[in-house]
Amino acid sequence: MEKELLRELESLVGSEWVVSAKEAIEGYLYDETPPPLRPKASENVVVVKPRNAEEVSKILILANKRRIPIFPRGGGTGLAGACIPTMSGIVLSLERMNSITVDSENLMAEAEAGATLKDLIEAADKAGLSFPLHPGDEGAQIGGLIACNAGGARAVKTGIMRNCVKGLEVVLPTGEILRLGGKILKNNVGYDLMHLLIGSEGTLAIITKAWIKLQPRDAASATIVIPFEKREQALGMVPKIFQEGIIPLAVEYVERNLVEKVGKSLGLKWPCTSAEYQLMIILSEPSEDALLGVLEKLLGLCEKSGALEPIVAETRKEQDEILKIRSEIYSTLKPDMVDILDTTVPPARMIELIRIVNELEKKHGVYMPVYGHAGDGNLHVHLMKWDGWTDERYDELRRMIYEKTLELGGTITGEHGIGYLRKKYMEEVLEGKAIELMKAIKRIFDPNNILNPDKVLP
Amino acid sequence: MEKELLRELESLVGSEWVVSAKEAIEGYLYDETPPPLRPKASENVVVVKPRNAEEVSKILILANKRRIPIFPRGGGTGLAGACIPTMSGIVLSLERMNSITVDSENLMAEAEAGATLKDLIEAADKAGLSFPLHPGDEGAQIGGLIACNAGGARAVKTGIMRNCVKGLEVVLPTGEILRLGGKILKNNVGYDLMHLLIGSEGTLAIITKAWIKLQPRDAASATIVIPFEKREQALGMVPKIFQEGIIPLAVEYVERNLVEKVGKSLGLKWPCTSAEYQLMIILSEPSEDALLGVLEKLLGLCEKSGALEPIVAETRKEQDEILKIRSEIYSTLKPDMVDILDTTVPPARMIELIRIVNELEKKHGVYMPVYGHAGDGNLHVHLMKWDGWTDERYDELRRMIYEKTLELGGTITGEHGIGYLRKKYMEEVLEGKAIELMKAIKRIFDPNNILNPDKVLP
Repeated sequence: MEKELLRELESLVGSEWVVSAKEAIEGYLYDETPPPLRPKASENVVVVKPRNAEEVSKILILANKRRIPIFPRGGGTGLAGACIPTMSGIVLSLERMNSITVDSENLMAEAEAGATLKDLIEAADKAGLSFPLHPGDEGAQIGGLIACNAGGARAVKTGIMRNCVKGLEVVLPTGEILRLGGKILKNNVGYDLMHLLIGSEGTLAIITKAWIKLQPRDAASATIVIPFEKREQALGMVPKIFQEGIIPLAVEYVERNLVEKVGKSLGLKWPCTSAEYQLMIILSEPSEDALLGVLEKLLGLCEKSGALEPIVAETRKEQDEILKIRSEIYSTLKPDMVDILDTTVPPARMIELIRIVNELEKKHGVYMPVYGHAGDGNLHVHLMKWDGWTDERYDELRRMIYEKTLELGGTITGEHGIGYLRKKYMEEVLEGKAIELMKAIKRIFDPNNILNPDKVLP
Repeated sequence: MEKELLRELESLVGSEWVVSAKEAIEGYLYDETPPPLRPKASENVVVVKPRNAEEVSKILILANKRRIPIFPRGGGTGLAGACIPTMSGIVLSLERMNSITVDSENLMAEAEAGATLKDLIEAADKAGLSFPLHPGDEGAQIGGLIACNAGGARAVKTGIMRNCVKGLEVVLPTGEILRLGGKILKNNVGYDLMHLLIGSEGTLAIITKAWIKLQPRDAASATIVIPFEKREQALGMVPKIFQEGIIPLAVEYVERNLVEKVGKSLGLKWPCTSAEYQLMIILSEPSEDALLGVLEKLLGLCEKSGALEPIVAETRKEQDEILKIRSEIYSTLKPDMVDILDTTVPPARMIELIRIVNELEKKHGVYMPVYGHAGDGNLHVHLMKWDGWTDERYDELRRMIYEKTLELGGTITGEHGIGYLRKKYMEEVLEGKAIELMKAIKRIFDPNNILNPDKVLP
């Protein structure tokens, strides 16, 4: 980077917080995207660490004047390359802005963008409340969780990130600091800019603070693993759970061969080995009595749905081990993985999507394990490395899966987002006019295209 | 209207569906806004009733070419004048597009914009499911409910309209038909145009169809009316309900003198007369056992919160009567009303807002009954007619209440929207840059400003 820019940035945030030495910036050049697809970072970047919205604003005003690309960065746990500085510019790390306060009376957390998911979960817990959402890696930061509208396994009962956010403080690329919403549960004043910014992946504004709705802490929970001999039975039970009036915290679909393998690699044992196709359900209820009532209903439904004997885990340790194995499927597969897809279909059509993936697996001789958030119809199809396969062949395969997903009334990303990776598929999902509107919105917020300039839009 | 335009419209939708006779259009010139504030409608309008999105598109293309204002109209149940044709133009009524189908497997309704809330509730019920939201008048239409992001009393457990909508079919003022989302529970493809359109009050696009998430039908419900001698006790109990892990369908705050009066006018008796300040709580649970468990918890909390003896209504008839009285407060007050405010504050600050309103009541000698959705912090302050008061004095009073609401971290409209009435207060709530962004968004969607041209934006 040019010396003069570094000096100017130092004058804005203090020299300690402007980092450009190669070894000091290395950790800011990647995210959790599978390496074969991960975009290459520019090494000609400077990492800047502001401590509040005012400093963020000053940095953006400078960058906007000089047309310097800004790459906002949270915990770097994304899977679509959205935070990678793909060209020379400024990595804007929110890590120093990490305070959280909980307002128990209003069941609301006020969290700075750089606080982590772990911080939020702990702060809620300390106040006798809970933040139920768990989009994977607890090192994810609040700003990133909101910018990417994160989901994860525990989104069935209380919804995804969008449903929890009630207010945002943001800084526009042109430097203005806006407050949208707050500790309020309803807000119908004009167009909802807050909801437009949620999920915009750091391309429209920098999120600096958020007001997040918390939930009461449930007193009792259980994790149930339900085995089936046929996949149709497992996925066929999912809508019945809801129709029966059971609203679990999580409804996951897994296959035995995969979770056993993952368990082994972690030195843990998957508790259910009687059949291949399994649902993993987390129930969370305000009292032991309520839990028993729901559990009884669920076990009755298992019987009617042709399940084999379910495993009920009630101790914290057992439940944590099951969730640990489920959560580590991705990192266990990662070394041999080309891509993790994030296809989402109407829940009743998951069975068709998996059937199509299996057919493609057989036809093309490539291993594509599938699992995911069955309660939301959000299935992660994994494209695994295969001898002699080229990027082009994977891309063909991916397009075939996307095409079928769209035919089923689905979409290509339910929670991971577009980022850098999926830009080239946008035109297959959206009508041209929708993309045109998005591009025009980008120009309104960011007239000089400085904010994450090569992300989201094709 | 000029004859040529009428003939062209007739060629697009059929002559039967183009209405311009004075007596036939009268019902399309007003909504439920209190008459003293209701904007005057132009009488030089034509009402057009398309039967599908394609016809809507043709009408918009014509109007866009000729720069003719379009006033989209649902059930006409709004309280902010958003659908009133305030200038010469076309009233676009969605009434003929009223089909609903329920997909039980995906717990999703596909509803055309002109189907009513009543239709939706009945269709869900028939499928063994439920649509829990109840934003007042059941003649409200789906398109309007979404365009205005409706709320109402039963929004505590499952959220407001925004939380239920998963997909939209819309027609842009320039004629393009877009489909956003669908029967999918997660969708992170680019900027969320669907969430931008929800709450945009018919100024950015015409909603023609929606995919709406349904809930399992609860097996047991109860309505509890809890009396308190002090207002502080009543409102002070609200956060404790949630902290205890109780999530009711509705938490309403009412005052005895008002509900007794309303009951009388309906020939019904409000069941709780022991004290002035009251909470009305609706519990809805998947089983009788679950209901009893929650009820026990709630009654225990009443005791700890200094309540007098609560009234528990469990029969359908008793519960319906209580809700009927609560729902009719607005129409009972209406003949003597100047305005119904829609102030929303962080729930723990409702007590301060009411205190301020009471002080203003005393100081200015004007009657301002307050009640509302306490679970959401959404209080309706009513400005009643008072001898010798002018519009200007009411406006001063309104501004004082708004100012205090904003100081408490609140907003001027939680569910009724901006429409025509509240445009002039936008600048007090939003930063100039936020309004500038909204105006730019309006220009992107509606370059010739034909869609509800004088609504929402100041």
